[in-house]
Amino acid sequence: MRIAIVGSTGLVGKELIKLLRGYELVLFDSKSVISFEGIDLVFFCVHSEIAQKLVPEARNAGAICIDSSTACRLDPDVPLVIPEINSDALEKHQGIIASPNCTTTLMLLALAPLHRHVRIKRVVAATYQAVSGAGKKALEEFEREPTFNVFPHESKMGADGYVDEERKMHLETQKILEDETLAVTARCIRVPVMRVHSQALNVEFEGPIEKEEVIELLKNAPGLVLKENLSALDAMGQKPVFCGHIRNDFTKHNTLDMWVVGDQLLKGAALNMVQIAECLNSLKKTVSGGF
Amino acid sequence: MRIAIVGSTGLVGKELIKLLRGYELVLFDSKSVISFEGIDLVFFCVHSEIAQKLVPEARNAGAICIDSSTACRLDPDVPLVIPEINSDALEKHQGIIASPNCTTTLMLLALAPLHRHVRIKRVVAATYQAVSGAGKKALEEFEREPTFNVFPHESKMGADGYVDEERKMHLETQKILEDETLAVTARCIRVPVMRVHSQALNVEFEGPIEKEEVIELLKNAPGLVLKENLSALDAMGQKPVFCGHIRNDFTKHNTLDMWVVGDQLLKGAALNMVQIAECLNSLKKTVSGGF
Repeated sequence: MRIAIVGSTGLVGKELIKLLRGYELVLFDSKSVISFEGIDLVFFCVHSEIAQKLVPEARNAGAICIDSSTACRLDPDVPLVIPEINSDALEKHQGIIASPNCTTTLMLLALAPLHRHVRIKRVVAATYQAVSGAGKKALEEFEREPTFNVFPHESKMGADGYVDEERKMHLETQKILEDETLAVTARCIRVPVMRVHSQALNVEFEGPIEKEEVIELLKNAPGLVLKENLSALDAMGQKPVFCGHIRNDFTKHNTLDMWVVGDQLLKGAALNMVQIAECLNSLKKTVSGGF
Repeated sequence: MRIAIVGSTGLVGKELIKLLRGYELVLFDSKSVISFEGIDLVFFCVHSEIAQKLVPEARNAGAICIDSSTACRLDPDVPLVIPEINSDALEKHQGIIASPNCTTTLMLLALAPLHRHVRIKRVVAATYQAVSGAGKKALEEFEREPTFNVFPHESKMGADGYVDEERKMHLETQKILEDETLAVTARCIRVPVMRVHSQALNVEFEGPIEKEEVIELLKNAPGLVLKENLSALDAMGQKPVFCGHIRNDFTKHNTLDMWVVGDQLLKGAALNMVQIAECLNSLKKTVSGGF
């Protein structure tokens, strides 16, 4: 079993190396001569333009590809997987599996168990996203000289005023939950935090659901920990996603507020990729540890 | 004309002193022996427990009181005033005028002109609030040793899961806009920013309203500047409130998203208090300058 990482010197690459301790890894970075000969499984943590070129090459060479980029997340032939939620989607994979956008993954760990109980109609999300999400260079710059600023997410803005990051939360949620009418309107914002994304969610359900029910459902949700007085630092370096400050929205029926925080580099990226590999039975069940 | 500031060494007190340059001021801090004899106008920027005790004393001594605390904001006999929006409420003052919660003031500079055009039914707000809002000690600690964290607002939480800061945004908005059915559900969050509050607003109107109309209305709104690529630092030390990233919410009819940022200590507190005084004709029109 030979495992490769493409993008091994990036922030997600480094987390993958830590999570895969004990495995022999073939590491590729931007200076490598890349060959997928004899590789069984490749983790891709590179920009989508690079993934678009290299993922098909790796698959054609016979490797299974787990891709963290946007390159093929919405491709109907590519499962987009959060193992706690839709590992069954892996069954029909054709050599490529996509790992969702970090913000989407963190949000859905809290929402999917509820959506199965009472259908979610619409989510109004406001995010508080870490600098790490903008890549290694941005994080290094921030660590050298922090700026105490808050600003809209830097991804490309469409004519409708939504940036790509916001659009992902809508489209990837629909694909993962297999619900084309569930709507997510998100305002994605960067805050001066190292590596934890936080989210304020206002969630409208199709029918009645009470705070107590939500807490009961989320108590047993895999990968999720309920916590009050929940701050971003609580999730730093942690595998689970945390959820708290759940309340009934007093201004609207069948609507609840939630506060979700999670490590962007772990469950938001590297950990989810390793868990996908575990589900594929390509790796032993113990790699990423339990919660 | 004798003007006093109670709480002159706090963050808001210091801003008041700067804005009132050229006026002779009587300054009171926590160590002062306080007497309101011969004082015509008092700015109160102290905690509500202290205001509760001292404001009536000042009024009984014949001074007009402008209070930034929560002490009497919801008192029906006390006008709660943002001069650009409801200066007419000053007419029936009885010696005490309240200045609203900072987050409410910043939000309403953007919402009031719209509400007069098409009624607002409901606002889902998520805030990104500066450390300065927690007071001088918190800001000094942060300046000495910044923590890169994000956490729910520290004000007291009720049984319904809303903290006082969030409740203020709802109740003060209803009072200022004189609309008891307008509902605000807010998630108030602290971020590592010095003195600027930012807000992601999802605003549902009673009838149709388009992005272009909103921009036209806000172009001429007093105290407000429209700006794209709008970050918290744009508003630092600035008198106007900034608004941008306006878009139609594609998930709901008659609903718009907005991004609002403003200096918490200026328009959020000291500047609004000085403007109230100007409206009272107790001060010359030039004190706070134009925008």
